[in-house]
Amino acid sequence: MTDFDTRKDKTAHWFRTLRDQICKEFEALEREAPDALYPGEAGKFEYEDWQRKVENGGGGTGGMLRGRLFEKCGVHISVVKGEFTPEMAARTPGADKDPRFWAAGISLIAHQRNPRIPAVHMNTRYIVTTQDWFGGGGDLTPTQAIDRHQDAPDALAFHAGMKAACDKHNVADYEHYKNWCDEYFYLKHRDEPRGTGGIFYDRLNSGNFEEDFAFTQDVGRHFLKTYSAIVRGRIHEPWTEEEREEQLITRGRYVEFNLLWDRGTTFGLKTGGNVKTILSSMPPVVKWP
Amino acid sequence: MTDFDTRKDKTAHWFRTLRDQICKEFEALEREAPDALYPGEAGKFEYEDWQRKVENGGGGTGGMLRGRLFEKCGVHISVVKGEFTPEMAARTPGADKDPRFWAAGISLIAHQRNPRIPAVHMNTRYIVTTQDWFGGGGDLTPTQAIDRHQDAPDALAFHAGMKAACDKHNVADYEHYKNWCDEYFYLKHRDEPRGTGGIFYDRLNSGNFEEDFAFTQDVGRHFLKTYSAIVRGRIHEPWTEEEREEQLITRGRYVEFNLLWDRGTTFGLKTGGNVKTILSSMPPVVKWP
Repeated sequence: MTDFDTRKDKTAHWFRTLRDQICKEFEALEREAPDALYPGEAGKFEYEDWQRKVENGGGGTGGMLRGRLFEKCGVHISVVKGEFTPEMAARTPGADKDPRFWAAGISLIAHQRNPRIPAVHMNTRYIVTTQDWFGGGGDLTPTQAIDRHQDAPDALAFHAGMKAACDKHNVADYEHYKNWCDEYFYLKHRDEPRGTGGIFYDRLNSGNFEEDFAFTQDVGRHFLKTYSAIVRGRIHEPWTEEEREEQLITRGRYVEFNLLWDRGTTFGLKTGGNVKTILSSMPPVVKWP
Repeated sequence: MTDFDTRKDKTAHWFRTLRDQICKEFEALEREAPDALYPGEAGKFEYEDWQRKVENGGGGTGGMLRGRLFEKCGVHISVVKGEFTPEMAARTPGADKDPRFWAAGISLIAHQRNPRIPAVHMNTRYIVTTQDWFGGGGDLTPTQAIDRHQDAPDALAFHAGMKAACDKHNVADYEHYKNWCDEYFYLKHRDEPRGTGGIFYDRLNSGNFEEDFAFTQDVGRHFLKTYSAIVRGRIHEPWTEEEREEQLITRGRYVEFNLLWDRGTTFGLKTGGNVKTILSSMPPVVKWP
């Protein structure tokens, strides 16, 4: 168990470090945004700590940026521990013998004001029961039909970034993770994908913690580098009313996915999770005309 | 079965008649709306027929009003038939012996532009397997905190209207139906009701078809009379930006309820129902700030 303790310290520290790097970079983008397109002050993250209601159950810090470029962006970190319910324990690796768990992670969602800049989601986590593993991923959601296909420049750039993170590590299987992402972020009721995808992985334990951890760190780093470049590539593009309208409608699909299909969201909301944090991923303005 | 055939004709005819009455009255309200508060042309319903993809499975007519007073209002009727899946048959009265069903109904949702006028929902239906029964109800969703309690004038008026419908019929138990509504339209993840309630009933078969049908008809009539009076009582009230903002946020709760908890919506969307009709109940503009 000493081994796990060191791992817990290292991963929790990493998620906080990544959070700091992301927030710093996104605030820099806020300042870079040209005044003519994005009037007002550059936004800054506001942080709020929360505790699980269980004694000694840990908690987290929610960070929200409501800015001029980032219309609404949440970057959350948490370190929680406790005991799984019997139902959860039965379907979680290593929890059948001992229901205690520890989990740390980071999750991020960004909704942009400029409809030409895609929305994005990223999260990575490290979970410990009597076993331990990593999971996470990142995926891009362009809001305009013209950008919502695999050959669109932003989609290609995002896929290239996620592939680069995978290619640096033998433990990561890019094609598998890309397909897993496409399968997961799918609106079955509309028979359409949520966005243009990225990667998704779970229960990663190759037997080499250091390698799995290094890969998970690179997912975060490559996500940040890739998405920031996509934003900078679009930040000077003006947009039309029609494009904004299309963005607000596409956001409705995002809401539908999260409330109907996303296992994390629906499980959290139906089992007494932190509503404010869970629903901080909802887009700021949405239309179903 | 001859008996059921007559009943099917009568109920299907009624739902269409009620639809016509409601649409006529709502279009009258559109014309009455004062130009100073509601610029533009008075809206009219647009109708679209749809067919179930199953052969000989029936279909319906969706009516949508996108107006100046009614920001988005759907009034839908349908007459469908087919065979339940074994899973559905097992939990549907009378379908265990024979999985065939026939169902007709009307459903309505109105989202108002004026945040001081409550949103509303109503639906009634008649279902036939080897047994037959009625179900439905109506409930009010004021968008302003000041109106979202049981003693608010609109809530009192709506409850009085639903009670009057029940009180005319021995087969209806108002207190039971009111509580049933409160239990059903509840956002468990937020521990708050969707609105101020109304009535909800299901599997009503008292043994007296004519009485059950007469009650169901009165639910529709009293709904129309009561809600129209609420709208007329508020139609001249101007509103502030802050009230509009509160309305758009309250609508988010509506979306959360429909996609997370509403059995009709989630069942329909997860079993290949008509997405366009099912999601026509979504509010036109919503905020999660």
